[in-house]
Amino acid sequence: MFDVRPVSHARDAAIQHAIDAKTKPRNALGVIETLAAQIARIQDTLTPRLDRCRLIIFAGDHGIAAEGVSAYPQEVTRQMLSNFIAGGAAANVFARMNGVDLHIVDAGVASAAVHAHGLTSRRIDAGTRNSAVEAAMTSEQCETALDSGREIGKNNAVEAAAFGEMGIANTSSASLIVHKLTGVELDVLVGCGTGLDAAGLEHKHAVLSRAAARTPARLDASRALREYGGFELVMLAGAFIGAAQAGAVVLVDGFIASAAALAAVELTPPLRDYLVFAHRSAEPGHRVVLEALAVRPVLDLDMRLGEGTGALLAWPILKCAAAMLSDMATFETAGVSGVKT
Amino acid sequence: MFDVRPVSHARDAAIQHAIDAKTKPRNALGVIETLAAQIARIQDTLTPRLDRCRLIIFAGDHGIAAEGVSAYPQEVTRQMLSNFIAGGAAANVFARMNGVDLHIVDAGVASAAVHAHGLTSRRIDAGTRNSAVEAAMTSEQCETALDSGREIGKNNAVEAAAFGEMGIANTSSASLIVHKLTGVELDVLVGCGTGLDAAGLEHKHAVLSRAAARTPARLDASRALREYGGFELVMLAGAFIGAAQAGAVVLVDGFIASAAALAAVELTPPLRDYLVFAHRSAEPGHRVVLEALAVRPVLDLDMRLGEGTGALLAWPILKCAAAMLSDMATFETAGVSGVKT
Repeated sequence: MFDVRPVSHARDAAIQHAIDAKTKPRNALGVIETLAAQIARIQDTLTPRLDRCRLIIFAGDHGIAAEGVSAYPQEVTRQMLSNFIAGGAAANVFARMNGVDLHIVDAGVASAAVHAHGLTSRRIDAGTRNSAVEAAMTSEQCETALDSGREIGKNNAVEAAAFGEMGIANTSSASLIVHKLTGVELDVLVGCGTGLDAAGLEHKHAVLSRAAARTPARLDASRALREYGGFELVMLAGAFIGAAQAGAVVLVDGFIASAAALAAVELTPPLRDYLVFAHRSAEPGHRVVLEALAVRPVLDLDMRLGEGTGALLAWPILKCAAAMLSDMATFETAGVSGVKT
Repeated sequence: MFDVRPVSHARDAAIQHAIDAKTKPRNALGVIETLAAQIARIQDTLTPRLDRCRLIIFAGDHGIAAEGVSAYPQEVTRQMLSNFIAGGAAANVFARMNGVDLHIVDAGVASAAVHAHGLTSRRIDAGTRNSAVEAAMTSEQCETALDSGREIGKNNAVEAAAFGEMGIANTSSASLIVHKLTGVELDVLVGCGTGLDAAGLEHKHAVLSRAAARTPARLDASRALREYGGFELVMLAGAFIGAAQAGAVVLVDGFIASAAALAAVELTPPLRDYLVFAHRSAEPGHRVVLEALAVRPVLDLDMRLGEGTGALLAWPILKCAAAMLSDMATFETAGVSGVKT
């Protein structure tokens, strides 16, 4: 169900040789070279192409929002969904500028279903339950969300697929999942999300401690998702798997998306090599996830918005990395002298 | 001659208000917001546009290359010039992917002038003199290079202008200029450039120490450029000034371009507010320049290639920053609730 084909390492030496033959000193393109090699492995070719990308934003509401863990009221999830459809959000602007298709999925916002062009409904329920007092969802809901995510991931895996999210209180959800998967203390993980003040942060920490105390110190990925997940976060985990199953380069956005990726990699470890982490979020828990996965994000712009905005900004850099390997001249073809001997 | 109109701060409060009204938590777009505000100040508007960019690559040779300070032979400068014209260099690939026009200027390569479509000749001489033993150029040559640079900068200042360079041994030139302008020791500044090994690095350090000992410990910008500059580096300094005089957003590439920017800002301090530093180079001296100017680069990708490649990769992010301010909906227009009170 979750099996992702491990990327091939058969061409690794040939890929490195091809990169080193380009008209530039060795390693002079740093992270661009690393990305080019990763894309080449995913596409199993020495001439990778990365011209098209689609971004799916999953939206869902969280029962734990009732505990006052967010600076914004819960209706903002639904209002932002309308904003995405109208084209006014940051993700819309960046997607237009960078030539990325954008689609919205209602994974389970609290208020009645929205019907609109450009919106796919995969509503699991009208928001999750309050994970401070009970499991956020049933096992069946969690499986349905994973399945929907996988299907959406597969169907939208053009050469590259990016996935973002929207859901008031979902930094709480992500912090709890990362806490249960890594064992790192909540003090380190919990941040101000969309903009809590000091008192708000202290309250959020107290609520999350209560929520964490409900279950054993460590959980496996399936249970962590079910106990603390949002529907959008579980669908993200499924979408990463589905897109990798379809052979796409998978762009992971910020903290919430990375928490979903951490769970998905636990479910299917070969997924990791398909993931490109777009940016380092200003949310403190993100650093923990990146370290747990031993990955370096492409950008570091102090962003904390979600919606796939980091993925959208990283996308042109991935395109350039693939084109570097496919289109640059070599020392030989260009008649350029190599290092002095 | 060098006067750049200081950017207007009259709209600063209005710009911040406009950014804060967008449908996102305050500061949630981090560096994107900082860039948007800078672009808005340069264009003196609340609705900045940044759709077009041109990259000029200045190429020049350095007499100090004869001391064996580079891993590559001097003819590579000229060979790479042909590679740029043929479209095979990294800069060509990134420019095509990101929709940037690319032009090449021969500021003074060692071998006979190249004539080709897409190449502008502004040759000062067939490379500079060896700055380890004498001034790299005369005062007249330095002034001509600055003038040519200013003219080119002005004529190519579409909404944004980016400037890069190519010149074997020009990390030596840049290191010496930064040393004389900042007083920071050569030990801290000198790196392996295009890929020296440990012995090569030690030799480079010895040559640069000898070159530095020829002149007083600190020099002003004009003299530092004349004593140690490359023609391409001096033209870069002029081009930054010319593009800012024309009101463009000016993208500065890596270590060599930033050394030129440091000198140019000393010549005309209001220039600084027009400059966007594209990336943090892996060359150690770059950190010193960025700190001296108190600026934070957009990208950090361990690159050390030059050619404007960092500027090209940062360009889509600048476009998105301008569009964010001009195109995003506000909480009011989108009907999204604000922070709970």
